[in-house]
Formats: sequence, structure tokens, C-alpha cells
Amino acid sequence: MEIICSQSALKDALNIVSRAVPSRPTHPILANVLMVVTGDKVTLTGFDLSLGITTTFDAQVMEEGKITLPAKLFSDIINKSPEGDIAIEFEDEEDNPMVEIKSSSGKFNLRGVVADEYPELPEVEKENSFELPALPLAEGLKGTLFASSTDEGKQVLTGIHIKAKDNILEFASTDGHRLAVVKPNLEEQEVTEFQLTIPNKPLREVLSILGTEAVTINYADNQLLFAVGNTRIFSRSLDGTYPNYHQLIPNNFERTFVTNRKEFIEAVERMSVFTDQKNTMIKCSIFKQQIVISADAKELGNAKATVKAETTGDPLDIGFNIKYLLEGLKVMSSNEVKFSLNSATQPVIATPLSGQQMTYLIMPVNIRE
Amino acid sequence: MEIICSQSALKDALNIVSRAVPSRPTHPILANVLMVVTGDKVTLTGFDLSLGITTTFDAQVMEEGKITLPAKLFSDIINKSPEGDIAIEFEDEEDNPMVEIKSSSGKFNLRGVVADEYPELPEVEKENSFELPALPLAEGLKGTLFASSTDEGKQVLTGIHIKAKDNILEFASTDGHRLAVVKPNLEEQEVTEFQLTIPNKPLREVLSILGTEAVTINYADNQLLFAVGNTRIFSRSLDGTYPNYHQLIPNNFERTFVTNRKEFIEAVERMSVFTDQKNTMIKCSIFKQQIVISADAKELGNAKATVKAETTGDPLDIGFNIKYLLEGLKVMSSNEVKFSLNSATQPVIATPLSGQQMTYLIMPVNIRE
Repeated sequence: MEIICSQSALKDALNIVSRAVPSRPTHPILANVLMVVTGDKVTLTGFDLSLGITTTFDAQVMEEGKITLPAKLFSDIINKSPEGDIAIEFEDEEDNPMVEIKSSSGKFNLRGVVADEYPELPEVEKENSFELPALPLAEGLKGTLFASSTDEGKQVLTGIHIKAKDNILEFASTDGHRLAVVKPNLEEQEVTEFQLTIPNKPLREVLSILGTEAVTINYADNQLLFAVGNTRIFSRSLDGTYPNYHQLIPNNFERTFVTNRKEFIEAVERMSVFTDQKNTMIKCSIFKQQIVISADAKELGNAKATVKAETTGDPLDIGFNIKYLLEGLKVMSSNEVKFSLNSATQPVIATPLSGQQMTYLIMPVNIRE
Repeated sequence: MEIICSQSALKDALNIVSRAVPSRPTHPILANVLMVVTGDKVTLTGFDLSLGITTTFDAQVMEEGKITLPAKLFSDIINKSPEGDIAIEFEDEEDNPMVEIKSSSGKFNLRGVVADEYPELPEVEKENSFELPALPLAEGLKGTLFASSTDEGKQVLTGIHIKAKDNILEFASTDGHRLAVVKPNLEEQEVTEFQLTIPNKPLREVLSILGTEAVTINYADNQLLFAVGNTRIFSRSLDGTYPNYHQLIPNNFERTFVTNRKEFIEAVERMSVFTDQKNTMIKCSIFKQQIVISADAKELGNAKATVKAETTGDPLDIGFNIKYLLEGLKVMSSNEVKFSLNSATQPVIATPLSGQQMTYLIMPVNIRE
């Protein structure tokens, strides 16, 4: 193999595929990236056996070939190299050859491992293929990824449920304590009907490289392939039925309050002095035209802040998990947020008054006496 | 106690004294800061029994008093409070009272511990007192702190040796592997004659708050007190004789090279891909008018870079600890650095060709075959 490529193209490609290289590989070869040179293209691949990322860029190719290289060392070398041309070559005859990496600043030799040992990414048939426009996809992911479960044991709850029907696109996620539902603005773009639950991990990668170009999704059996520009992200889809979340959202409310989202967030964040991993609760006391937010760490101390609000209904004390409350409010983009409540033990709905069409359901926590 | 003070003055003061609050206190009260209100002044103190920092700022005092508060929670509360006035008060009658901290954004109650339990900082008599101008002090500390030992067992080597004689000020530090000597430019300012070895810890704090004002140093027995503006830093001085380091610096050299300091640093930093905690060595091969820098991680790979240099003497291969080499070069401010060498086993001297008057001695490491 012998190529000359641009340092920045190689650096960007390595950054993208490295996100699928496991930090604790189950097999040593998975700590490497696969580099395949054919035609005038270089393709890099990272794969942890569940998430796979492949990306392609142009290079000046003198001799085709393939090899795997330790992802971390390879990235370190390229990140530390100056902008400009990088020449990479090795003798194909050797078994695990030293790969020469040359730039204007010096020469590195890095031990490679033959590509034959690297596992192949599963093929995903192109039968079921559809496109999603970039902006609605970004809006849906930003509004739901945070509320999906990170506990691998929770199966279907580690995914985002995406559904397109009657040209309405809907994203939903829940970890059992809260539920986020977003209906992105399609701005008259047409979307194919489908329904899928996709793990949050590959979706985070899709979001991180998403530009303005539409994303193509192929799925077959329980496998998925996202095409985002020159990058392909492979993942398994999630088995099992997604909870019927619409029935969790109450229709009638005894109380509401509307408040400035940013001021409310700041007041809640100040309470975090007295919350920790054991004590996660803050209390909202809803009065006429104001909300008193408080946290109590018993012997250590306590905190209290007041924000103005437009309220309806009777006064109420209600407890929230501070993390769940903040995460939901922070993905909203509106100036004002509306809370709709019944009692201190029933689900609460927070909706932004402008910007996204989003419903954030959060279960209150019991106020300890 | 009852005061009103500015959030920013209190925040700055807490940041300064918190650096003397131990993260793992030997006694619970040491995790607190002491707050003493007298006249129209508030004085905060942090003390880990070896390093003590005290700082004073103005406040509107309605009632004098003193209390200790948990340093971390107190800092969190003040850092999260908006700019403007902060009111602090508690009832002096109570034993460990709840201290009320109020700002425009809300109210905190924080449990205090009576000040009587807080250890007193030792008094340092003012007999031996002298001033050091700020700029030369900063220059001397920046050029030597990095080379002092962080191993508490190494006693006197954890200090900086500072000497003033015949109106020449000299700072020296060594950890046994390298030696840094700096003679700051006094610009005709007069300094009192003295000689002291001072632990690096309080000196780092002095450097971090140093402005343009001169620093007053009082010392008596083995105790030291630095006065920097409104802040006082207390420390013990180090017993034992400081090594006679001047005799370690060779006078004659068989070889020299002068090279661009920044390019040399960049080339050495690139080698760090193949160095780690076990393999700390880089090799410099001195040829006519160029230095080839290399690192070898055996099976993993190797790296090589060339920098231009003006050389005298015969070619030589010499090994350096990459960390020691980089740390010394990085505190210099000159465009060019001169290396003076004899053999691959004798001390090497690096000196900046402009800027500071600094001598950096570094012991080579054996080149493994």
C-alpha cells in the first residue's frame, strides 16, 4: 500500500470512526481501525461488534492495499502532524508490517496488523430504505436522546422510538421516570411511513456528524445502516414492543404555571448546592403568581429561591428529581415553559411555549417529611 | 454576626483561601473556612496545619462576630449567586448556628461550626522582615517551581532556594535529576541580603496571586509569612542545608548546539506518541547543523524528526527524559536555546539566549540498546 492524503481529511475521518472503537476491546484487533485503499479512495472503519462506523475520503493512491492500525496511536500521530500532505506506505508481503507515516515534520513507523483478522461489518439489504431530512432529524434527536435509558439491561428503553405516519414525524424516549415526545417541523417535506426503535448510541453518532444533507436509513431483520454523507453507521435495531406512551400523557389538568424557562433553570441549578447522588429532590411550592423552589439537606443546610409565574389552580407542593427536571428544560429553546399538573403524585407535563413541538412528562418524587 | 458584602469580593477571597483547605482533612474542622468580622473588615482563613492563607476585604458590618463554614458548600453557594450584594447573618447565641446567606436570587441556610474549634495560625515575629519586588519574584518562581521535588520525603528538595547577596537575587530548585537556576533582572531595585529554602506549595500560592506590588516576607525560627496585598500566606520553612548546586554546573563543554526553542519543543512533543510512563526516553542525535530527535517503542513502532541547529564539536547520541526536557524548555521565553554538552553521561546545560538569565541542568539518561 502506498498513498498520499491530506492530514485534515485523515484526522477528521479518524475522529469519526474512533468513536466506534471500544475503550476496552473484547478482542485486541477491535482496538485497531481498518484502513482499506481502493481506486482513489481510503475507507476507515471502527467497530465494537454492535456499533460500526465507516467513512471514506479521497487520496492519491500509488498502490492499493489494506491494514489495521492501533486507533489511539494512529490518531495521536495524525493529530500531532502538521497540516499538509501525509504519506502512508508499507510492504504488502510482510505479515504484521511496520507502516511508515511521513509528514513534513518527521517520520513515524507504526506496527500494523493484517486486515484479514478484522471482523466484517454485516451487510444490510437495501429493501427497506428511506430518507429523513437533516433538520427535523436533528430536532427530534436533540429533544429525545437525553431521556432514553443508559442501562443496557433496559432493552427497548435504551432506544428512541421514531414513527412517521400521515406525514407526521414523531420521536419518543423514556427511561421509566420521564418521557420526551417531539414532533419536528417538517416544513412540507414528505416522509415515508415507518416505525422503528433505534439504540441511542448510533443515533448520538448520527447527530454528531449530521450536516444539512438528508440521511438514508436501510433496515433489514434487526440491522440498520445510516448513510450520512461519506459516513456509514451500522447498528442493530432493538427488539420488543415500545411502550404505548401516548396513554401515559394526561389530558386534563387541575393546575398550570407558565414561567421564564432560563430563570427557572438558574433557580433550580442554585439548589444543586444541597443535592447530591443520595438527595436528588427539589421541591416546587406553587403559590399565586410565584413558585418557591427549595432544597433541604437537613443538618447541612437548605436553600430557597422564588420565581415569578402565571399560575392557575390551587397552591401545591411537589417534588422533582433535579436532574430529570433540568435535562428536559435545557433541550427546549423557548423563552417560556408551561407546566401542567394535577396532584403531587401524578405525572407533570412541561411544554415549551414556542420553538419545538415537545411534550416532556416527568414523574414527581415523594416529598420526604 | 451580620454583614452585607459584594458577591465578587467574597467569591475572590473564598477562591484564594480555599487553596489551603485540605481535600482530605485530618480533622473535620479543617474542611471549613474561618470567617472573622471586625471593624469594617471580613477576614477569611484556610489552613491545612502546614499551609495557611488569610485574606481580608471590606464589608458593611452591622454586627461583628466569627464562625466557620464548610469551604466547599460555602464556595458553591457564593459562586452560584448573582453579582451584587450578599447578606450573611446568624444568631451569636447558638452553638453551631444555621448561617443565613441571602442574595437577590434567593436564600441559603448553611450550618456553621463555632470558631473556637478552629486552630490558630502561628504568629510570625516581624524581626526578620524584607521586601521582594513583584516582577523579579515572579520571574524567579516561574523559572524554578517546576523543577522542585513533589515527593514530601525529599525534604529540602521540595523547596526553592532563594538567596540575595551583593544585590544579586538567585532562585534555585532541584529534584536530583535536574537543576534550574534563575537570576531575575532587578532593574536597579535594591534587595536585602538573605538566604532561605521555602517549600514550593506556599510559593505556588504566592505566584498565583502576585500582582505588581512588592511582597513582604517575615521569618522567625522555621516559620514564614508572606504578605501579598490583602492576603497573608503562612508556611513553615525547610530545615537542612540546601545542596551546593553551583559545583554541579560544568564550566567547560566539548559540544554545543543552538536551535529554535519552539520548533525543538514541537519536535520533541511529537515523539510523545511513543513515550509513556515506562518508556520516558527520547534520543537526540547531534550531527553537523542538525539534530535528529527519535523515540523507540520497540514492537509498537518508532518516530523520528529533524530540526536545524548551529552545532560545534563532534556528533553525539544522547538520551533525555522527555518530561524533564520539555518542562525546562517551556518556562523559557527566548526564541533560541543553547545546549552545552560533554558526553552522553555528563550533565547537559540548556540556557535561553535572551529573556531570562537561566541555567537549566539536566542529567542525560542511558540510551538502551
